[in-house]
Amino acid sequence: MVKLVAMYKKPADVDAFEKHYKEIHTPLAKKMPNLQKMEVTHLFGSPGGEPKFYMMAEMYFESKDIMMASLSSEEGKAAAKDVMSFAGDILHMMFGHVD
Amino acid sequence: MVKLVAMYKKPADVDAFEKHYKEIHTPLAKKMPNLQKMEVTHLFGSPGGEPKFYMMAEMYFESKDIMMASLSSEEGKAAAKDVMSFAGDILHMMFGHVD
Repeated sequence: MVKLVAMYKKPADVDAFEKHYKEIHTPLAKKMPNLQKMEVTHLFGSPGGEPKFYMMAEMYFESKDIMMASLSSEEGKAAAKDVMSFAGDILHMMFGHVD
Repeated sequence: MVKLVAMYKKPADVDAFEKHYKEIHTPLAKKMPNLQKMEVTHLFGSPGGEPKFYMMAEMYFESKDIMMASLSSEEGKAAAKDVMSFAGDILHMMFGHVD
């Protein structure tokens, strides 16, 4: 199992971010082929004080090849284009192997 | 559902980190009361180049109160003390609400 991890720093306009993420981006992301599960987490604290990120989204796929093919699909490109349009400056994406 | 998210930057000595994490830290973390699930992910890439983190561990609990009580327990303190001893300088921990 692998996952795409999208880490978002705090947006300048939280309400606008939440509205776009929920109404526009989530439906696009969920259309990505072979997406098995999507988990969104809002970070509310840290033992060290402030959390470095505001939100994270994790998208699970069966294998690296399947994930990469999904990202390269029309649906994957549409989701990527959308996220860059409203959150490109606060986003760090990573690929991970789930142990 | 809530989770404790531990993000690790790349350790100076990867082999020593992996050995300690697997043999010492994981058994301590799994003793934390009311831990429902623990998921460890090794980050291997990023669309933007290098991933900012090397590994992440996610520990799931039923509620914030249960998570905080677990962290304050003897087992929670032992796990925290251990992680600070070998990875305190590369670790960022966050609390999150799973949507």
